[in-house]
Amino acid sequence: MVYADNAATTKMSRTAIDAMLPYMETHYGNPSSLYRLGQEAAEALQSARETVAACLGCTPREITFTSGGSEADNQALISAARIGERKGKKHIISTAFEHHAILHTLKKLEKEGFEVELLPVDPIGTVTAQQVADAIRPDTCLVTTMYANNEIGSILPIAEIGAVCREKGVLFHTDAVQAAGHLHINVNEQNIDMLSLSGHKFHGPKGTGVLYARQGIPLTNIIEGGAQERGKRAGTENVPGIMGLAAALKEACDHIGENAAKVSALRDQLIAGLSQIPHSALNGDPVHRLPGNVNFCFEGIEGESLLLLLDQAGICASSGSACTSGSLDPSHVLLAIGRPHEVAHGSLRLSLCEWNTQEDVDHILKEVPRIVAYLRSISPVWKDLASGKKQFML
Amino acid sequence: MVYADNAATTKMSRTAIDAMLPYMETHYGNPSSLYRLGQEAAEALQSARETVAACLGCTPREITFTSGGSEADNQALISAARIGERKGKKHIISTAFEHHAILHTLKKLEKEGFEVELLPVDPIGTVTAQQVADAIRPDTCLVTTMYANNEIGSILPIAEIGAVCREKGVLFHTDAVQAAGHLHINVNEQNIDMLSLSGHKFHGPKGTGVLYARQGIPLTNIIEGGAQERGKRAGTENVPGIMGLAAALKEACDHIGENAAKVSALRDQLIAGLSQIPHSALNGDPVHRLPGNVNFCFEGIEGESLLLLLDQAGICASSGSACTSGSLDPSHVLLAIGRPHEVAHGSLRLSLCEWNTQEDVDHILKEVPRIVAYLRSISPVWKDLASGKKQFML
Repeated sequence: MVYADNAATTKMSRTAIDAMLPYMETHYGNPSSLYRLGQEAAEALQSARETVAACLGCTPREITFTSGGSEADNQALISAARIGERKGKKHIISTAFEHHAILHTLKKLEKEGFEVELLPVDPIGTVTAQQVADAIRPDTCLVTTMYANNEIGSILPIAEIGAVCREKGVLFHTDAVQAAGHLHINVNEQNIDMLSLSGHKFHGPKGTGVLYARQGIPLTNIIEGGAQERGKRAGTENVPGIMGLAAALKEACDHIGENAAKVSALRDQLIAGLSQIPHSALNGDPVHRLPGNVNFCFEGIEGESLLLLLDQAGICASSGSACTSGSLDPSHVLLAIGRPHEVAHGSLRLSLCEWNTQEDVDHILKEVPRIVAYLRSISPVWKDLASGKKQFML
Repeated sequence: MVYADNAATTKMSRTAIDAMLPYMETHYGNPSSLYRLGQEAAEALQSARETVAACLGCTPREITFTSGGSEADNQALISAARIGERKGKKHIISTAFEHHAILHTLKKLEKEGFEVELLPVDPIGTVTAQQVADAIRPDTCLVTTMYANNEIGSILPIAEIGAVCREKGVLFHTDAVQAAGHLHINVNEQNIDMLSLSGHKFHGPKGTGVLYARQGIPLTNIIEGGAQERGKRAGTENVPGIMGLAAALKEACDHIGENAAKVSALRDQLIAGLSQIPHSALNGDPVHRLPGNVNFCFEGIEGESLLLLLDQAGICASSGSACTSGSLDPSHVLLAIGRPHEVAHGSLRLSLCEWNTQEDVDHILKEVPRIVAYLRSISPVWKDLASGKKQFML
């Protein structure tokens, strides 16, 4: 099997599993308990917090463990909104191609009376610091832009956006779920005030995430109860999960350069190979791009059929994000970069990790062109395009 | 080591760990993905949902997986509040000795304009259905009472409270975090509309929980984003954790009678033995009591010192709930049942599970009286009590 959907989720690393097992099997104490078994769990939690902080360039106190990237995104935005509200600032800037954890939380805030401005995304799938600068108003309380897009892989100029926000005194949050473990992060150098990440995107466990919030930024609970996480996130800590996340993040950050080099070389072969397919187009920034991301539109086919046939050929891939599969709507990300509806339906995302091989790439480059050709041969839309009855768009 | 703090957290069962490992090691697909690896994860999730539903006597569609009992409690209360709000009903009934996940969420709702009425708890630590019936008003939108108290182990008359709520057309939620896996639950027989539980209280994994909500009760998201859990709880599902929770719950429910018999026999020995200590008192209902719960006040000592010396004697125990340890305030539960501040500080909770043994009980019954006597021998308060300068309260 060729697993090429690492942006959806990843196989856990042995390092991460081995970091979890002792806390599942023998070190099961509640970190809030006074006795040694509990205090050992509390110490483990603290060491995980230090590890994560070191990977992000912040202090351990600035780390809150959550149940995932979505929860971290929700809490970041709600917290910033409450801070803004208290100052009478209710304008929020984001982009049109954020993850739904951001977009749907912003919708909720809109219903509460916040004004949300979604910056348009250019055709290669990016947003500039200048766009952010132009959009900031005296009543802007938050800018939230993703670090890298989950579907098309574009990397945003986070440090520049952060600098603009810093200069104008506006809180800056970034959803770094796709970036963490894959791209360099240093919250101070990059002027990031809040950041979300998810454990299962870098060979860590599902059900784990991190919210970084710069010291002095008061978080608003979205889960009330016990005093865990300095009172900001209630519920007995998921000690095994947190240990797995920290171990996976450290492993990823320790090898970030070599992994990126290896994975982007494989990626570039895929991009070059798939570009040979007629009436195809790469989606996303060709230069500032996640090392593992490949995303194409193929005219005249349905993405779903492509995925099913790829699955039969032993290739796991996706069409847009996993979170929105099952929906018949075309990807909001592809629409945001200007792909027409019909074309957006025929998209393919391949996302690689450092465990993918040359054989994987060869297999994909053998199968995708064959299946695209086959699907076109039975596609009424393709017939219309080929006969000139309809115009090609790509 | 004698682990007698199973109400704080439990050691995972081999069954639960073994149910998780395949989903950590090889079956790592995202359940939202179309290909087989993803669909296998989706099927596993569905089987876990069916298992949990069978344990609660509901349908799989009525189960939402969360990151824990606290999240489930929060979502239940927020959802019920939003339903009430739409009907102009903003009165909520609960009890004075709920878990903080309930009490703090109620505080948040109070700030929003809800009127929260906390029913007083009688000296043995229970609340009657008649109290609930008397408190229900035409504008009551929710009754939320715990199934069994986490500190003193009293079991509330949930079915009767549910019947009262059903008759009066008021939503009934129960925090069953301490009950699930230990006491019989059937949401239909017991007239329960919403129920929360937590995986790590019955040998399942930390970071997992369940919210049951009767069909037709619309949930309000507290985590917005992807369409997971029928759109009611965003974030990639924690498949390994969910599989572990389901396996642990099934194992607990399959042996619920024999476990309760075994554990309550050990509990009763502890209660009988510790009652011999002068100026001590059992906290909580002596009859309607969690099989594993033992909770005593010992006059003239500090609970914290008792716990530290018990730890040195190889016994893991607590003084009130783990979630509030680190706080110097006496337990709100012990205050609710009328224990004076000074006495509430000298409390000990021992919570057993089916893995505790006769040797564990013998060891506890040897150590606790010895340590209590020693602490009293160095206690200025005890000197005042013994000399008649102060009055005994127990």
